[in-house]
Amino acid sequence: MPHKLFRIQRADPRPAGRPVMLAIAGDSAAGKTTITRGLVEALGADRCTAVCVDDYHRYDRAERRDLPFTVLHPDCNYVQIMEQHLQLLAMGQPILKPVYDHHTGQFTRPALVEPRQFVIVEGLLPLHTKLARACFDATVYLDPPEEIRHAWKIRRDTAERGYTAEAVLAELERREPESAAFIRPQRAFADIVIRFAPPTSPSPFTGRLVPAGTPLSAELLLRPTIRHPDLDGVVPEGTAGGPGTAIHLRLARDADSRPVDALHVHGDADREDSEVVEKAIWSRLGAGSGPPACLGRTREGQRTEPLAITQLLLVYHLLDAAR
Amino acid sequence: MPHKLFRIQRADPRPAGRPVMLAIAGDSAAGKTTITRGLVEALGADRCTAVCVDDYHRYDRAERRDLPFTVLHPDCNYVQIMEQHLQLLAMGQPILKPVYDHHTGQFTRPALVEPRQFVIVEGLLPLHTKLARACFDATVYLDPPEEIRHAWKIRRDTAERGYTAEAVLAELERREPESAAFIRPQRAFADIVIRFAPPTSPSPFTGRLVPAGTPLSAELLLRPTIRHPDLDGVVPEGTAGGPGTAIHLRLARDADSRPVDALHVHGDADREDSEVVEKAIWSRLGAGSGPPACLGRTREGQRTEPLAITQLLLVYHLLDAAR
Repeated sequence: MPHKLFRIQRADPRPAGRPVMLAIAGDSAAGKTTITRGLVEALGADRCTAVCVDDYHRYDRAERRDLPFTVLHPDCNYVQIMEQHLQLLAMGQPILKPVYDHHTGQFTRPALVEPRQFVIVEGLLPLHTKLARACFDATVYLDPPEEIRHAWKIRRDTAERGYTAEAVLAELERREPESAAFIRPQRAFADIVIRFAPPTSPSPFTGRLVPAGTPLSAELLLRPTIRHPDLDGVVPEGTAGGPGTAIHLRLARDADSRPVDALHVHGDADREDSEVVEKAIWSRLGAGSGPPACLGRTREGQRTEPLAITQLLLVYHLLDAAR
Repeated sequence: MPHKLFRIQRADPRPAGRPVMLAIAGDSAAGKTTITRGLVEALGADRCTAVCVDDYHRYDRAERRDLPFTVLHPDCNYVQIMEQHLQLLAMGQPILKPVYDHHTGQFTRPALVEPRQFVIVEGLLPLHTKLARACFDATVYLDPPEEIRHAWKIRRDTAERGYTAEAVLAELERREPESAAFIRPQRAFADIVIRFAPPTSPSPFTGRLVPAGTPLSAELLLRPTIRHPDLDGVVPEGTAGGPGTAIHLRLARDADSRPVDALHVHGDADREDSEVVEKAIWSRLGAGSGPPACLGRTREGQRTEPLAITQLLLVYHLLDAAR
């Protein structure tokens, strides 16, 4: 009798001392840090190493003024050193990581980074090269609509980095060709594409107009490049645009027309619906206790169900890969 | 017929893209930079990468004030990162090396270091660990008498680093236990031990008193751990303490009583004697033109024959390993 064939081949056993590596790629202010923070809190800071790979710049801010490209351009970064450091982390080795100070625009003393059980790598270009991608157990691309991302970037850079809104807008415009050329192509290499966007109104779930302040919806493309938790029978099948429930799964076609699962969590999904899904995902792990309660917290400290389910799915993949 | 057995096994063929690696270890102000400078000049800066591995400090100067050890202590350094970077260089990979500013006592922006054909690594602890030592094709330990080294350190640190002589002496005293514990033990792992010391007077070569200003003599222990140029018939056999020529080779016993060749170049050796030896070493390489003329320059720009022959021997080993 032939061996059973898995649709996705099982990974080799993880060598001792090697961490689980997750990449969260996306453009500036796409939400990488918010998602990462929740994962670290859920898994425990003592088991996680969060690494931002946006410090591998070749030039400081003053030097970049005379250069024809922005920090998004691979030529503006030590991409080969980033690859090297990702490989070292993936093999369980420490690195001495460069540190770029976003306030001063200068480089400061490097930091020792030792990989714990889970290494979460976020940044602009972690999926830019094949050798970098090969370091990860799971890869994520954050893909909010550009108008949402621009609003987030203006809010953050004016509040935290001392820029005016006009300066941020000018910078976004200057970066756009390089966003198109180098950042967005990484979407093709993600196992999961995450899109937070304003919920459709009226709500297909309640039929009512969605009030202001309703959290963003999440649309998660679950590509068949890794083994996702089986949500058959847990999450109802929905249809795009039609009536459905606040949380549903549908078969869709990816940008390149390949089949893909799309998990939708509407912004007005309530806690009860979310908990059913969370418990189902969690039970797939065979873990004892329930899912972490700390998930879903936005920058403002508010819990949203779309963010909670998104983060839980990533926690699932980290724990699943560690088994 | 059995294969001919070499006394020292020939190294494996060098994989393409891998540099020749030379370590020059020694305590502070032992003469590492002076020797390195001549090697780079002789081989050509375009073929050499000189790396100082004294920038892998864990703590800056202010932080060290509260610590019970000095920069000589391995616990004060990222030894594992130094090992990693040496391994990467040995495999032909670039590194992003930390940079410590000796003037400010702080860390500054890291520097990209790409290995050229010859990588000369100098510093306090390059031979401290087995994995570090394994990266080198040849290893050198600089072993001047302590009073000479102290004088050199006072001269350099007062002239170039803004310390008073009293401060340098106090620091030397503070470092002494760690010099004994961590720096000097590296002498045992060197293929060549180099000792510059005041020449004996009267000169065993001329029989006359050695005038003030005569360059230091060099005593080179050539350990049978690598294949040295065969100087039989070129350099006369001398005897320690007895009459001899300005340059001679003698069989001696190492600190652990193992047999070793000792090449002595007296401070008043003249250029003609030196040139005979230099040409002999150079001809062993089968290289066309004569030995580089730029060797032997001290910090003051004066040529000395002991330094010239010392550097030529190291150039020999670098070129020989590259063949």
